[in-house]
Amino acid sequence: MFHKLLIANRGEIAVRIERACAEMGIRSVAVYTEPDRFALHVKRADEAYFIGDDPLDGYLDAQRLVDLARETGCDALHPGYGFLAEQADFARLCAQTGIAFIGPDAEVIARMADKSGARETLREAGIPVTPGSRAPLASAEEALALAEALGYPVMLKANHGGGGRGLRRCDDPAQLEQAWGQVGEEADARFASGALFLEKCLVGSQHIEVQVLADRHASVIHLFERDCSIQRRNQKLMEIAPSPRLTPEQRAYVGQLAVRTARLVGYENAGTVEFLVRGNEIYFMEMNTRIQVEHTVSEAVTGVDIVREQIRIAYGLKLAFRQEDIRHHGYAIEFRINAEDPKNDFLPSFGRITRYYAPGGPGVRTDTAIYTGYRLPPHFDTLCLKLIVWGMTWEETLDRGVRALNDMRLHGIKTTAPLYEEILKHPDFRRGDFDTGFVLRHPELLDYSVKRNPDEVALVVAAAIAVHAGL
Amino acid sequence: MFHKLLIANRGEIAVRIERACAEMGIRSVAVYTEPDRFALHVKRADEAYFIGDDPLDGYLDAQRLVDLARETGCDALHPGYGFLAEQADFARLCAQTGIAFIGPDAEVIARMADKSGARETLREAGIPVTPGSRAPLASAEEALALAEALGYPVMLKANHGGGGRGLRRCDDPAQLEQAWGQVGEEADARFASGALFLEKCLVGSQHIEVQVLADRHASVIHLFERDCSIQRRNQKLMEIAPSPRLTPEQRAYVGQLAVRTARLVGYENAGTVEFLVRGNEIYFMEMNTRIQVEHTVSEAVTGVDIVREQIRIAYGLKLAFRQEDIRHHGYAIEFRINAEDPKNDFLPSFGRITRYYAPGGPGVRTDTAIYTGYRLPPHFDTLCLKLIVWGMTWEETLDRGVRALNDMRLHGIKTTAPLYEEILKHPDFRRGDFDTGFVLRHPELLDYSVKRNPDEVALVVAAAIAVHAGL
Repeated sequence: MFHKLLIANRGEIAVRIERACAEMGIRSVAVYTEPDRFALHVKRADEAYFIGDDPLDGYLDAQRLVDLARETGCDALHPGYGFLAEQADFARLCAQTGIAFIGPDAEVIARMADKSGARETLREAGIPVTPGSRAPLASAEEALALAEALGYPVMLKANHGGGGRGLRRCDDPAQLEQAWGQVGEEADARFASGALFLEKCLVGSQHIEVQVLADRHASVIHLFERDCSIQRRNQKLMEIAPSPRLTPEQRAYVGQLAVRTARLVGYENAGTVEFLVRGNEIYFMEMNTRIQVEHTVSEAVTGVDIVREQIRIAYGLKLAFRQEDIRHHGYAIEFRINAEDPKNDFLPSFGRITRYYAPGGPGVRTDTAIYTGYRLPPHFDTLCLKLIVWGMTWEETLDRGVRALNDMRLHGIKTTAPLYEEILKHPDFRRGDFDTGFVLRHPELLDYSVKRNPDEVALVVAAAIAVHAGL
Repeated sequence: MFHKLLIANRGEIAVRIERACAEMGIRSVAVYTEPDRFALHVKRADEAYFIGDDPLDGYLDAQRLVDLARETGCDALHPGYGFLAEQADFARLCAQTGIAFIGPDAEVIARMADKSGARETLREAGIPVTPGSRAPLASAEEALALAEALGYPVMLKANHGGGGRGLRRCDDPAQLEQAWGQVGEEADARFASGALFLEKCLVGSQHIEVQVLADRHASVIHLFERDCSIQRRNQKLMEIAPSPRLTPEQRAYVGQLAVRTARLVGYENAGTVEFLVRGNEIYFMEMNTRIQVEHTVSEAVTGVDIVREQIRIAYGLKLAFRQEDIRHHGYAIEFRINAEDPKNDFLPSFGRITRYYAPGGPGVRTDTAIYTGYRLPPHFDTLCLKLIVWGMTWEETLDRGVRALNDMRLHGIKTTAPLYEEILKHPDFRRGDFDTGFVLRHPELLDYSVKRNPDEVALVVAAAIAVHAGL
């Protein structure tokens, strides 16, 4: 097995990877920029190296990270998600330096990063893709003509986009014309490519994605699907495994499509194939060539440790399971506890965590890099904790979710936790009746009243008693 | 379902029951004595009532607890484990007051509490029981004669004992003669009955127990076994599900014996049937008529929420599962993190928890009533946290256990955690080669060096930097 692994990331995913390394007897190497000096991923690593005062530059400096891996004697590197995780050049640089990149081959990353190219490859191979462009659009005029042919609404997307950024729904030609310039500029700035493409927008559809694992010995398996329909502005908020709406036939079908997709592109390592599902319309959307935030729910229902498998695959080992060994058991929901204030247009709420108490008991998992006293730096994304609940039935999972959200104590910042409690209690959600428009369609979900923290009340009372007693 | 449930207990099991209530929509009522004023089970309950200055009396006052349940409008009462959990009179008092006792009928509790009576009932019904007494012993002379017939070593046990108290191994007549008076006195003081009985001591055996669930509609199922062989002075330290040593045939056999036992005594609710296993010698030892500390590992491998099932059964509902619905999946280990110093003869180490950081990530569960700043009161038992790990294979579970023990931060007191890390790393244990004598046979397990807390080191460094910088 590998001896030493550099984690080119931070936050909860860096801690997650360190845990896998610890269980596998691999020495972990963390990196950190100035605002992460007291971060948990630094404290928990076997070694940690400072990579600069700028909050972000160090995490995006491929050459420096690979040099550091070499200098510190690492034989492997895990990119996590975000930052350089889907940069083909980064994977290539690792390979050239003789360091195993925990992910697919650079060529495969590049091929899947070109969204319309990937769509066309798969379409030609007989995989159903969302109706839309067969190549990047040359002009706004071409976009308008294609949209007319597809029928509105349409989605205008950055050809090298991802993570729910660089895309816009357009309901009519005027919106599309306006979006053309704006999305193009965003794509250029964020993804270093202004190329755009169009997809038909399937109103009322579910965002379904399938986790695949592929080794270099021709084995490709899937770990069933995740339902990521609970979103706000194309950002996933909660993810569910398996989807409470898919029929067993649909489940088998998307699983098989995902495995075929991975085989077609010569995929190796863990990846996710995303689909749009509306009734019996099932279309390939894109493939993500990295570990995803929400891999946890697939772990909860199948028992497979996906990060461990990633590392084993990159080392050249065979998958530890055959498809028929994989069962899904019960339901799992991940809540992305973001440092945002839902009542104030989801304004980021960075600051000091004055108190964090982890929820516990049966069917509860947390993945986080926060701790009591930690100051959430404002330079990174707002995800501060992933709370994952598992239950034998859909109803038990929902009830456990409400319980665990209440069990947790996270003070000092505002979070999205109260919104999730409202979603769990919503009768449509409980019935499994939700799609990607659910949160937008139900603004009343934000009408919760912020609970007074009972511990703070107790402290006030205790303080009053103490004063009274002259203590 | 019940509306309101009084929890006649404290600590982690009270918190565990509150969580089940929260998930089931039942209002929870906590009770507390003076040292528990700031306990987590009080903070987390929907209501909490003070039951006296004496640390223990309130938790042992059956009449007062039942009165309080009635006065506060409770329709159910959960006794947890310890305290009054196996007092038939307490269950009877609840029934007379019209409050549902979450446990078996008072008559069944009484019948199983009389250990030699239970042994004889089951022996007559064809259940193999450990060779030994067929009735309480009348005198030391009778004990000596029986021991001679059984062959040494023997176990001298309190007839109404339990929880690993009131028993002594005797290797020869002199030890038995000496133990006769001592164990008798302890039994009298602790269990209000000086009656004793003898069992043959099976050196090198495993302590195997089977979790059963029985409803009042004639359904009795088992949730497979737990291996509780890792003990010190008859106190369980770690529990494992399923046992890595049992063959599938032995597993099926003890499961079936446990279900037969529960049927024979007319059992209702959750219970545990304990066996001694040495190769193909498998004997019934006793039945515990309550939820057990280690129920968590059975939950981890089967997915069944046992406390939820207890409450459903007591309400009169049918079991939610048939035997064929229950599978065991992977392995789970529970570590009883006790506030004791293994290096100092396991001396209790009560005091203030200066820092508690819960371990997280895949396959990790915690059940605890501690929190940062909590002062562990010296009046109760030393169990301060249950850490449960799950893994797909035995090896993965062991590696995850080491990782999770290291992931946890618990400062301010000494605990048994370092001992468990040594056990997990021991080659015999990893091979599954252990019995109830394992800990005693390996005193080298205590030769660990206490790790310097890296966070404290970091703090010292940070403080030095701060001083240097004039901050």
